[in-house]
Parts: sequence; structure tokens; C-alpha cells
Amino acid sequence: MTVTEAPRSRSGRAARRAERAAPSVLRAPYIVRGIPTYDILGEESLLRIEATADRILAEIGIDFRDDPVALDHWRRAGAEVDGLRVRFPPGLLREILKTAPAEFTQHARNPANNVRIGGRNVVFAPAYGSPFVMDLDKGRRFGTLHDFENFVKLAQSSPWLHHSGGTICEPTDIAVNKRHLDMVYAHIKYSDRAFLGSVTAEERAEDSIEMARLLFGRDFTDQNCVIMGNFNVNSPLVWDGTMTRGLRAYARANQGVVIVPFILGGAMGPVTNAGAIAQSLAETMAGCALTQLERPGAPVIFGNFLSSTALRSGSPTFGTPEPAIGSMVVGQLARRLNLPLRCSGNFSNSKLPDAQAMMEGTMSMLAAVQCGANYVLHSAGFLDGLLSMSYEKFVLDCDLCGAMHAYLKGVPVGDEDLAMDAFEETGPGMHFFGTQHTLRHYETAYWDSELSDNEPFEKWEAAGQTDAATRANTLWKRKLATYEAPALDEGLDEALKDFVRQRKQAVADQWY
Amino acid sequence: MTVTEAPRSRSGRAARRAERAAPSVLRAPYIVRGIPTYDILGEESLLRIEATADRILAEIGIDFRDDPVALDHWRRAGAEVDGLRVRFPPGLLREILKTAPAEFTQHARNPANNVRIGGRNVVFAPAYGSPFVMDLDKGRRFGTLHDFENFVKLAQSSPWLHHSGGTICEPTDIAVNKRHLDMVYAHIKYSDRAFLGSVTAEERAEDSIEMARLLFGRDFTDQNCVIMGNFNVNSPLVWDGTMTRGLRAYARANQGVVIVPFILGGAMGPVTNAGAIAQSLAETMAGCALTQLERPGAPVIFGNFLSSTALRSGSPTFGTPEPAIGSMVVGQLARRLNLPLRCSGNFSNSKLPDAQAMMEGTMSMLAAVQCGANYVLHSAGFLDGLLSMSYEKFVLDCDLCGAMHAYLKGVPVGDEDLAMDAFEETGPGMHFFGTQHTLRHYETAYWDSELSDNEPFEKWEAAGQTDAATRANTLWKRKLATYEAPALDEGLDEALKDFVRQRKQAVADQWY
Repeated sequence: MTVTEAPRSRSGRAARRAERAAPSVLRAPYIVRGIPTYDILGEESLLRIEATADRILAEIGIDFRDDPVALDHWRRAGAEVDGLRVRFPPGLLREILKTAPAEFTQHARNPANNVRIGGRNVVFAPAYGSPFVMDLDKGRRFGTLHDFENFVKLAQSSPWLHHSGGTICEPTDIAVNKRHLDMVYAHIKYSDRAFLGSVTAEERAEDSIEMARLLFGRDFTDQNCVIMGNFNVNSPLVWDGTMTRGLRAYARANQGVVIVPFILGGAMGPVTNAGAIAQSLAETMAGCALTQLERPGAPVIFGNFLSSTALRSGSPTFGTPEPAIGSMVVGQLARRLNLPLRCSGNFSNSKLPDAQAMMEGTMSMLAAVQCGANYVLHSAGFLDGLLSMSYEKFVLDCDLCGAMHAYLKGVPVGDEDLAMDAFEETGPGMHFFGTQHTLRHYETAYWDSELSDNEPFEKWEAAGQTDAATRANTLWKRKLATYEAPALDEGLDEALKDFVRQRKQAVADQWY
Repeated sequence: MTVTEAPRSRSGRAARRAERAAPSVLRAPYIVRGIPTYDILGEESLLRIEATADRILAEIGIDFRDDPVALDHWRRAGAEVDGLRVRFPPGLLREILKTAPAEFTQHARNPANNVRIGGRNVVFAPAYGSPFVMDLDKGRRFGTLHDFENFVKLAQSSPWLHHSGGTICEPTDIAVNKRHLDMVYAHIKYSDRAFLGSVTAEERAEDSIEMARLLFGRDFTDQNCVIMGNFNVNSPLVWDGTMTRGLRAYARANQGVVIVPFILGGAMGPVTNAGAIAQSLAETMAGCALTQLERPGAPVIFGNFLSSTALRSGSPTFGTPEPAIGSMVVGQLARRLNLPLRCSGNFSNSKLPDAQAMMEGTMSMLAAVQCGANYVLHSAGFLDGLLSMSYEKFVLDCDLCGAMHAYLKGVPVGDEDLAMDAFEETGPGMHFFGTQHTLRHYETAYWDSELSDNEPFEKWEAAGQTDAATRANTLWKRKLATYEAPALDEGLDEALKDFVRQRKQAVADQWY
């Protein structure tokens, strides 16, 4: 079905088609969490962090570079503007943020894949932004458009991701000022899920949004979120004009903006978690508020990226315990602002899909789902800090995303779950394999890993003594070999290709 | 210092010496958690599980095999005894359990290593019970006493474990009816931490306790917990006499008893988490209550071992999401009984220290610390389900235990943590490496992994492109090579060796 029709025509027929395409339990468009968030701080502690953020905003302030419009916005809103420095009277940003929606839908070209962001919902998207890719066969090399397309396809193939993401890897074989066109096209062509557009320049943001308009229609796009952009603070306490002009472009078009401080404690922020979190709160509130000054009511996501530093070497570290526990506090703060939360999912500094990779990856991914993130960017693929997308790690991480579906169901306690009839049928010393209760739940009882080895040692030995990385190597190749592109209306496809062609012809290649 | 003196003589000098030997932040005797537990169910849901456990106890009942004394205990306490089947009127077990302490100290021969079990305290102990050991050089083979001693030494060497554990691996080169003597001796000789004794037969339990008496003195032992035993339910709903006679021996001597149902959902319990948890609650309450009938006030720990099954093959699975989230509920139930909680820490079905090993291991370990376990058995070493102790996995897991120390500190929000002076010193766009605040916290700010690679790719490549398993292989060898045994009073050592010799001479070898 050419599901891009649905947002345009909400006829009974389209609705029925959408319903038939609706996901089963095994392929949900997103997760609705069945467990509460893990709230580790009490009211008084949260107030202390919020008060520190307010002091940072009022006393230190934030620099807004190369964007006079942003400075005008702040001046009119009642902030104190002194050159590039903006200081915010206590309460100003909270007041501005009241127009931001607590929850919104990002539409996908297949409406069965629309994601609801905010509330109890959890959406997993691939990792974002690596210049390199790696696999066990060829090691590390610069990413290409071919790699990018491969990762879009692998993401689309996984039932455990919900969103196609953005710059899954940098297609470094395409000019910097043109690659966004190929990336947006690839997301539309090879996936039927929601996606992110470009943020690296205002005109690239506009191009991305224009392609979304071609896909979803101009009017629909003006009234609905169909594309989002992920914008980083230049921490500490600097917003660059490239970012603010881009985020204002998305907000102006009523499209989603994700605001993310990037704080490696000890480098771009204090080495103590509480201080880094206060800074992060200050930076995020300012970015989120700017979207509301550009267009009140535009969808915006409170983002979080805390990490730590190996203080002996100055190297950044990822998947460590301090950012993991810090995320829980960021989650509490975002909910107090009534904003949807983005967290970073699965990180590792390891250069291989090994034990370190999944120790760090699992710790950070669990933190993301426990802290209540609604949009989990970087759910799959990262190795080598943020520098490489690993083919093997990608499928290992998708498997972990599958585990998170089971985890977030929590522990239901209906009569069927309490299984009293199973005890009556068995009694002391009897096994449960054959009970009616087991048979009723046989197929869905437990998460079924695609990659874990659960065989007895002897069987594993006889089957080749593989490790998980080797099995992952086999799996991603099989997934690419069996990938099928979702149907896309030919006229739309042509229109998108025309747009890409025209925009590419209009400018000379830039490689930096 | 011959720290075994301390429990006998609490002189000012001994106290001062103990203080000097007291652990720094880097080597704490146990963790006092700075974060709340992760409570996922509300009151009504917990009541439904408790009501189901009460129905299982009253309507189905539990079989107590080969232990007439246990049946007598139950009869006198007011349970309904019908052959081996015991049924419990609602409320009976909760009433009996009121004499059990909510918190107690297990003494170590080095009093600086005494562990406080219960409340906000968290104690990590190695894995327990594998017949096999494995390493990257020699693969899997049956464990020997030499391996056992190696693991005691590796545990002692780690600042991140707190307890020496029990049957870290089975020393299969020693007769079944004699190996407990060598194991207890090795714990005393090669470690100065608290440990577990034998549970495989009543006389072996008595031997273990007797050796503890030699070490700590008879009177001190009668009044203080100096040894514990870990007792499994033969789930579903069967307590074997070997276990109940053993646990009564420990309780009679006022020593610690850990009560642990062993439930693989779908096999020894229902496939639904809520049902398995209700069963576990019923089984654990019965075991814990039996210790109180034997000796009211004896220390007892509410244990938890939930796991799942790969329903297609029937193989047990470990480190999966359902037991992880189920543990949170078990934690809530244990706290409602006001009993210390044991959870299982770090599991994996993988046969290698690979990505699967640490995905599963990290998920289960985080569940243990989040659910509020006070005593975390299996914190380090397991691979191959429960069947193998891996040398590499052991040191990888110790590293994760180190991360848990940082994690459990939570996010302190004192003025120093909020770091306002660091913002005043830097301001927008400035890095924090050189601030006074960073310098003050430089050494303790972040967990410092012994095994993770945090170098840039090029440095990692030049250094040999190692994976974490290879680095772990190097590390455990270095740790064994540099291990130093804690001093042990020579007279005591002789007395212990004499006891072992005599007990070994008294009986013929049994090999099954």
C-alpha cells in the first residue's frame, strides 16, 4: 500500500487499510511503557538543581552567536541581551515553555508507523552522526551513501526500532552541502517510518522540510509534525547560529525540534553530575523556549546527552555509570517541565562488538528506558565513542531493543498472570511445561533473542563455537540480502528525485 | 594484622587498628546505597501477588521431604500437616517471620571487612556452584581445588567485591564428602572477608560451622553471624530434607541462612512472571519461617532466583528481561516482610566472555542493585548458564561491580556538587579541565574501569587491537601473579588444618 496517501486522504478506505497494516504485538509502532520511571531524587534535591539552573541562566547567561533574529526574540520576550550574551530572569523560560505540547505525533509515510512522542511512549531510533562505519570483515573506514542506505534498510528490517533516525552515518562520498538530500531521500525510499532531517545549515534544514512537504503535502505538513531535527548546544552555554537558525526553520514550519546539550563532564561541564545536569537544564530550556518564540505550540523535545571523561587522559567515556544514573534526574526535570524527553540510548567506546561494547551499551540503554525517555536516539549501532557505526553492533543493539519491549511491559498481575490454575494443575514437584497455562502463553511468554546462544555447551561447540559478534556478522548480511523496500508511489518518487537533482545542480560541491 | 583477634578482643588498641585498616572510598567493606530502589508495582498489585502466595500456601501447600523435625516444627506452629504436605493458614508465616532480624552483621576475620546485610546496604559476592571452569587459553574443563583457590584469590584481590562467597566452583578433584573442608579452609586462608559454608549435607554444614567456631571462638559464634549457608528450594513447592536439615543446622548455631527458590519459568514455575513471583514468595516465606522455628531471631535472608526458558528448545535462559523486571517486584515483597534480600547478580548463557555475556550480565546485575538486593550472590564469574566459572568473565564482572559502586552513589546535590563556582570561573564557551572545581574532584570524579578501552581508535589499533576478553585474560593472570595472602595467625591455621585432616580421615571418599 502506498501509505503516503493516508495523511492526505482520511477516507474510510484508507483508515481500514491502515488498520489492516496495524502492527501486531511483535511489531508495535512504539512502546507504551508498563512500568513507572525510575525517579531517584526527591523534591528538595530537584529544587536545588532547578535553582542552580536558574542562577546559571540569570547570572552567567548563554551566548547566542550569529543569529540576530534569536537575539531579537529574546529581547522582546524580556531577557537581558548584552552583546551576544543573554541572561534570563528567573521564571521567564518556564513561562515561555507553557505553549509547548507535552505530547505529539510524528507522522510516518506508513501511518501504521506514526510515533506518539511524550507521555508513557517510548520510540527507538538508530544512532546518529558517525563519520566512520565498521564491520568484522573490513574494519573501520569512512561511511558512504551505500553504508547509509544499508543502515536505513537494516533499521527498517528490525521490528524493534520505531523510527528511521537521521544521519545514521555520514555519507562522506557525497559533498557536505548535498548529502542531506541523499539522506532524506534514502529515509523516504528505503523506510516507511518517521525520520529526522538535516540540521547542519539553515538551507539544508529548509531542503529537508521541503522534501517532507512533497511527501506529506504542504497543508498537512503545516499542521502536523512529519519531520524533526536534532540540534546540539555548543556546551557550555553557547548556542551557535547554525543551530538556532536551523531550529527556528523547523519550528517555523511546525516541525519537531530536539534540543540536546552535549556535555562531557570535566570538559564541557563540571565533573560533578549535579552541576552538569543543572547546566544541561539551563541550556535545554533556552533552546526549547526559542522554538516557542519562533512559533508557539511547535513540537519540541527536551534532550539529554551526559557523558564523562577519563580524567587521566582527557578521553571522553561512554556507557559509564555516572551519566546512566544522571539520566534518571534529567528525566525527572523534563517531566516537571511537561516536555517530551529524548535520551541517548546505546553507547560504547569499544572498537569491537565485544564484552565492553555491550556492558556499556546495556548500561546506557537501560538508563534511557528507565529514566522515561520518549525518544531514544542512538538506540543501535554506535561503537568507537560516537565515531563509528558498526554493522554487527547495530543488530546486537536491535536485539537489545527487543529485550526492552519485554522489559517495559513490567509485571502484569491479572488473574491469568497469577496462574493459580497452573498451581492447581501441577502441585509440588511437578513441572509446568505441559500445563494448560503454559500452552496458552507458549508463543509470547518470553523475549526470544535473535542472537543469543542458549544451547547446551556441547551443542554450541558442535555448531562452530561462535561468539555473538560472529553471529551478528551473519545476521546483518542475511537481513540486507532479504530486505524488501516498502512500496512508494512512483509519482512521489519522481518528484523527490527531481527535487534532489535540482537542488544539487543549483550549487557547487563543498567538501568541508 | 591478624585481624581474627578483633572479634575476641574489642580493646581500644584493636579498635584503633581496625580503624587504621578501615577501607577508603576505593575499598569499602560494602556499599550503602545513595539511590532508592526501583519499585515498579503499586500497593494493589503487590496485594494480589501476596494473596496468590497465601492461596498457594493454604490450598496447594509445600512438601517437606525426609525431615520429620521440620514437620514437627510446622505441626507445633499451627500448620496443617498431611503426610509430607504442609498447608499454612493465611498469616501464619508472616507472624513467625516477625522474629527474624531486618538487618544483621556477618563478621569477617578482618573486622574491617565485616558486612552489614539489610537496610540500604549492598554486598557483592562471587558466583556459586559451577562444576566447570573456563578460560581463553584452555577452554572448558572440570573445576579443581586449584581453580577454587584461584577464584578466592581473585575475589580477594578485587576492591569491588565484599564477600568471598561459597562454592565458587566445584573442586571436582576432591571427594564430594570432603571438598567442603578444603573450600572453607581456602576461604579462611586466602581471603579475609566473610564467606559461605557447605549446605550439601547436614554434617558438612556442621563441619563448616565448626571451622568458623575455630576461627571466631565458640561463644562469639553463638552470638554473632560468622558464616552463612545458601539453601535452594526444590521448586516447585518442595523442600528436600538435605536442605532443611542443613538450614536448621545453621539457624540452630545462630548463623545466616539464605533461602532461594530456583524457578525457571515454564519449568519449575508458571511462564508468567506474576505467578512465578507468587510461588517464589510462598516458597521463600516457608523456608525463612522454618529458620525462626528452629531458633527465633536467627539471621535469615529472603532469596530470589527467577529465570526464564527458551520455550522452543526448553533450554534455560539467563540475563533476560523478564527475570530482570520481575526482580524489582521480589524486592518490594521482601521489604514488605522486613527481611534482607538476596538476588542473583550477573548471569549469562554465553560460552565466551563476549557481547552476549555482558549484555545479559549487565542487565541482570543492574536489576539486582536496582531491586534493592542486600546480598548479591553471583556477582562475578558465571558463563555457560550456571555451569562454568570463567576467569575472564570474573574480572570483567568485578569491573562492573566497580561501576555499580559509582552508580549506587546516585546524584548528590550539595553546593560542591552543584558547582556554581565552576560556572563563575568559566562562563560560556570555556572548558572545565582547569577549573578549581575540576582540580578538587579530579581523582574521584568518575569510575575508572580497569578493562575498558577509552583510547582513540588509532591508539587502540597501535596497542594491538585487543578486545575486552583478551585484556581480561591478561588481567586475571597479573592479579594471580601479584596476589598476596592476608596474614593468618599460625596457631589458628594449624588448628584449622588439623580439623580438616581429622575429618577427612574419619570417612571414606565418596565421589557422587
